Amino acid sequence: MTVTRPFLSDNAARVHPKVWEAMRAADSADNPYDGDALSAQLDERFSDLFGRECAALWVATGTAANCLALATMVQPHGGVVCHTEAHIEVDEGGAPGFYLHGAKLMLCADSHGGEGAKLTPEGIAALIDPIRDDVHQVQPHAIAITQASEYGRSYTKTELQALNAFAKERGLGLHMDGARFANAAAFLGGSAADAAHGVDSLAFGFIKNGAMSAEAVVLFDPEQASLAKYRRKRAGHLQCKGRYLAAQILAMLEGDLWLENAAHANAAAREIASGCGDRLMHPVEANELFVCLSGADREALRAQGFAFYDWGADAARFVTAWDTREDHASALGKAIASL
Amino acid sequence: MTVTRPFLSDNAARVHPKVWEAMRAADSADNPYDGDALSAQLDERFSDLFGRECAALWVATGTAANCLALATMVQPHGGVVCHTEAHIEVDEGGAPGFYLHGAKLMLCADSHGGEGAKLTPEGIAALIDPIRDDVHQVQPHAIAITQASEYGRSYTKTELQALNAFAKERGLGLHMDGARFANAAAFLGGSAADAAHGVDSLAFGFIKNGAMSAEAVVLFDPEQASLAKYRRKRAGHLQCKGRYLAAQILAMLEGDLWLENAAHANAAAREIASGCGDRLMHPVEANELFVCLSGADREALRAQGFAFYDWGADAARFVTAWDTREDHASALGKAIASL
Amino acid sequence: MTVTRPFLSDNAARVHPKVWEAMRAADSADNPYDGDALSAQLDERFSDLFGRECAALWVATGTAANCLALATMVQPHGGVVCHTEAHIEVDEGGAPGFYLHGAKLMLCADSHGGEGAKLTPEGIAALIDPIRDDVHQVQPHAIAITQASEYGRSYTKTELQALNAFAKERGLGLHMDGARFANAAAFLGGSAADAAHGVDSLAFGFIKNGAMSAEAVVLFDPEQASLAKYRRKRAGHLQCKGRYLAAQILAMLEGDLWLENAAHANAAAREIASGCGDRLMHPVEANELFVCLSGADREALRAQGFAFYDWGADAARFVTAWDTREDHASALGKAIASL
Amino acid sequence: MTVTRPFLSDNAARVHPKVWEAMRAADSADNPYDGDALSAQLDERFSDLFGRECAALWVATGTAANCLALATMVQPHGGVVCHTEAHIEVDEGGAPGFYLHGAKLMLCADSHGGEGAKLTPEGIAALIDPIRDDVHQVQPHAIAITQASEYGRSYTKTELQALNAFAKERGLGLHMDGARFANAAAFLGGSAADAAHGVDSLAFGFIKNGAMSAEAVVLFDPEQASLAKYRRKRAGHLQCKGRYLAAQILAMLEGDLWLENAAHANAAAREIASGCGDRLMHPVEANELFVCLSGADREALRAQGFAFYDWGADAARFVTAWDTREDHASALGKAIASL
Repeated sequence: MTVTRPFLSDNAARVHPKVWEAMRAADSADNPYDGDALSAQLDERFSDLFGRECAALWVATGTAANCLALATMVQPHGGVVCHTEAHIEVDEGGAPGFYLHGAKLMLCADSHGGEGAKLTPEGIAALIDPIRDDVHQVQPHAIAITQASEYGRSYTKTELQALNAFAKERGLGLHMDGARFANAAAFLGGSAADAAHGVDSLAFGFIKNGAMSAEAVVLFDPEQASLAKYRRKRAGHLQCKGRYLAAQILAMLEGDLWLENAAHANAAAREIASGCGDRLMHPVEANELFVCLSGADREALRAQGFAFYDWGADAARFVTAWDTREDHASALGKAIASL
Repeated sequence: MTVTRPFLSDNAARVHPKVWEAMRAADSADNPYDGDALSAQLDERFSDLFGRECAALWVATGTAANCLALATMVQPHGGVVCHTEAHIEVDEGGAPGFYLHGAKLMLCADSHGGEGAKLTPEGIAALIDPIRDDVHQVQPHAIAITQASEYGRSYTKTELQALNAFAKERGLGLHMDGARFANAAAFLGGSAADAAHGVDSLAFGFIKNGAMSAEAVVLFDPEQASLAKYRRKRAGHLQCKGRYLAAQILAMLEGDLWLENAAHANAAAREIASGCGDRLMHPVEANELFVCLSGADREALRAQGFAFYDWGADAARFVTAWDTREDHASALGKAIASL
Repeated sequence: MTVTRPFLSDNAARVHPKVWEAMRAADSADNPYDGDALSAQLDERFSDLFGRECAALWVATGTAANCLALATMVQPHGGVVCHTEAHIEVDEGGAPGFYLHGAKLMLCADSHGGEGAKLTPEGIAALIDPIRDDVHQVQPHAIAITQASEYGRSYTKTELQALNAFAKERGLGLHMDGARFANAAAFLGGSAADAAHGVDSLAFGFIKNGAMSAEAVVLFDPEQASLAKYRRKRAGHLQCKGRYLAAQILAMLEGDLWLENAAHANAAAREIASGCGDRLMHPVEANELFVCLSGADREALRAQGFAFYDWGADAARFVTAWDTREDHASALGKAIASL
Repeated sequence: MTVTRPFLSDNAARVHPKVWEAMRAADSADNPYDGDALSAQLDERFSDLFGRECAALWVATGTAANCLALATMVQPHGGVVCHTEAHIEVDEGGAPGFYLHGAKLMLCADSHGGEGAKLTPEGIAALIDPIRDDVHQVQPHAIAITQASEYGRSYTKTELQALNAFAKERGLGLHMDGARFANAAAFLGGSAADAAHGVDSLAFGFIKNGAMSAEAVVLFDPEQASLAKYRRKRAGHLQCKGRYLAAQILAMLEGDLWLENAAHANAAAREIASGCGDRLMHPVEANELFVCLSGADREALRAQGFAFYDWGADAARFVTAWDTREDHASALGKAIASL
């Protein structure tokens, strides 16, 4: 049967009408690359949003955004501490190894103290302290966290403060993969500043949330902007018609469309969660649900037109998006409840 | 005064209406990345166009397209023979060094036998034969040519046959940077197959010619497609909403829009050339003009609203595009003639 | 007190008198780099030793030897399956990431089926099969095993046959880190051919076993020798007075000095083991012992002049070498037995 | 006939007796890697020699020494300005591209103002100023000069002061390739400090001058030592028996053996030069001679047992070394004079 109720991923969602509109409005010729009038607004717009000075660059993918940000803080012989299930480790085809010229991802598992794929200072210390200053071992240069995490959990401002203090003390950079930053921020109360508290860089995702092809690399040390711009060019990510990317981002920021879209997706996730009971593997804070479901259960749901990914042998992952229909979410919650 | 008659570059041109249309039509959700129905058509469409089996991948920039293609034939310890003024050498911010992991660009100047930044087998041989099999010197793995060349010249089928034979004999790959492939093909008579005769790979440019953000990596050894796909992902160029890029390319191929657009630009260039007389530094075959003009001449033209780049101290470069207005081209030709 | 009975590591041992002799004999001028008469003998000598055609190159460290061998089979976007505790993962300062341009080490733990840091086809399959052909995940290009393993265990010919068959079936290269290859070969009965059965490349270690600064990269596909030679030069490992390295290796091969030295070290290890009883964490097959010893026990041993490394909180590692004195080994065994 | 009078290169010369002696004296076991008592002396010994604080690391080749030093000042997206005929460009098999992760060598020809392959501030400025701050072009991060130059010329203290001032003004590092630093220093009067005036790093060559396998990376910003040590390990150049390399270097420094050996080689070169008249292509300052000689002339010399390399079609290169016999030099000078 035709799939009519999609919960596979937010990364194939449609482009928001306001984004389309902004792109069309950018059609008239302007300076190429990032010399256009729209790209020129990014630094200021993001500085306003976060309440601290930053530089912002558009790129076409979250993978590139993460890697360019990390390149400002990690040298080729260094390492990046991240969770064992971090997207940069398991889903980016080795991009960090490429962009960071062989730097190492140093994996921290939940057993190190966090939960839901979140990192803690204690967990990181347990990983890196035993090898400190050992020339035979790659030394960490940065920490990478994901907001919301790979299991849809959010870092609170307090948790971020602790990570920031730890990173500073150890001389490490602190990067945030924000593919679903909007969903985390919406959950945390809507403050971009709080949701990115204390990080040195943020890959701010818009594509899963209504844009077509534009993410932002946000650098809270604006002096790193030059390095990131040379690296972006070198990676083939300096598009000559950059105005269309800037337009997408500006449209998403305008009137907090980014928050509005995320809030919609989060609400849909909560609606589904309401039917899941103790099947939930993780608290639902953003727009992803990890639900214990037997093979037969999953089959039953698919027979009703719900599309989603298996998560191992006994669970499934559901993802909502800015354009998830409320009736679909409601139906899914009920369908799971009645299994 | 406001610039009203732009000849700076084709890379900031508007997006063609048919491309906009195709992108909008791709809006409904589909599989992410390149799993969508549009991306699935690329291999066949390009195979038809070139009359030989090939694989085709979309990417967002010509820089990425060139580098991914070269990565199929050049190992990190090898080199790429290209012209001293090749775009990959002078304008891509070191991207080949990044994508090819330190492989070397081996520069061949016009003094080696070509003209207008074109390469010849004799010129290449003069460069690489003296170092053959010397472990202290980087050995070439591939040749990269540009169609149309950096000075707007085209390689004929005969010239390409000679380069192909030479490359085969020396065990080298042959890559074509086709940022303005359409303009060259239009000049050569409209056959894509002839304009790319004998090359192993082609970075087929659409962005300067009416697209927004999609170029094609065309691999005439389809077995290399897998490698290129892993490298594309690794470079952060596998966009999750790839259907919008595929849509652009398909729109450009449909009804030979790519040729029609290029023919328009070429005609505008010829119109301008008709006023340049012996000021022309190179025959005008595609959509670029290099014109000897004193500083005073250039000032006079700019006072009339013509925008263009200086080319050294005594010349200027003019570029036409698919959306260049005929009255602008005509006016420019006359203005130069009357200097 | 002065350390008089050293069991820290074999990598600081003295140079064997016959190696010194051979180096002195190489002093008269000859062709530089690897163009000398001694380097010219390596291919044949190793082909004879292994009973199959191979190419052999000297390098100054095992790290370089492993990496150059892996570079013949792993592309930058690929991965190398190795044990979680493999030397290339934990002790080479990120060298594989450097030499392989960001390729990924894919870690297989003992829980995947082997023991003593040995890999099995089943364990590898469990790691790589679930991600097969997923462009978002790094794909394996090679397997790296260590002979003797990081816990002093040896792969038998039968085990190597199984790994070879598995690697062939999956299209993977099979590399052997042989930093202590001699000790494994001596344990397995003295056949170099059996101890390296079915591998595509071997980093044959001599430095821990009596040489000063020469290891051999042995490539069982001699066609890869050219690539390895260009990579060796590129890595700054093509020494201009290479004859002194070749001399070391030839001296070690002459009259099977490599086996004789290893047999001595192994015998010393067995002598120690005879006093360890069930304190042994792993069977002693080569020249390393991992012994459960409390902090007080270790202190007591050190007070008797024995030098060794702690192995976590409750154990110690002892390593014997070609120049370990028999009375030292005997004394150590007795000292442990009497704890 | 047997070659009896060798002038091919200094890089295949014998090892000096005092170096042998020092190596043998280092045979007793010590800490591995660079933890031994000899390696521990290097920083102080070189600081004394140069009269300014520095850190010094041994490595096995000049290629590695140059690359590790450059890695302390050049990021992967940057460039190194060097002469068109610099050794790092033409003779190191692409090693800088490897060690610097694709950074670009930016070539400065003699036409830019220097002579004998020496660089000048004016020549460098002409190369780099036109591309300043252009994101499409690789930006320079460092300058690399060679002392003595590829044509045997020396930089005076005054010239080095000018280069230092220029580099500082442009924010560039200044590296010196000193494969024949001893010969330049001997020519300039014997002061190591003057011959390396104002540089940030020096690859101090000993191998061509009497050592076996040890060069020194000298970093005049000791804070860079840590980075260089991690990079050395990562490149497979941290030998476990490093004491034998330290011993070589210390023996060369002891009693200024390095200067004595170089003075001998220089004197032999001057002796030959005295017979060359206006055949000399470059003034003879160090231990290399470039001499205009027809094919017949070269044949005549070779018939007399002189060994040397052709230098293009109409010239030859002769190199003297610490062990060049005075009668050979004298005979060569006379033989050329009588052609």
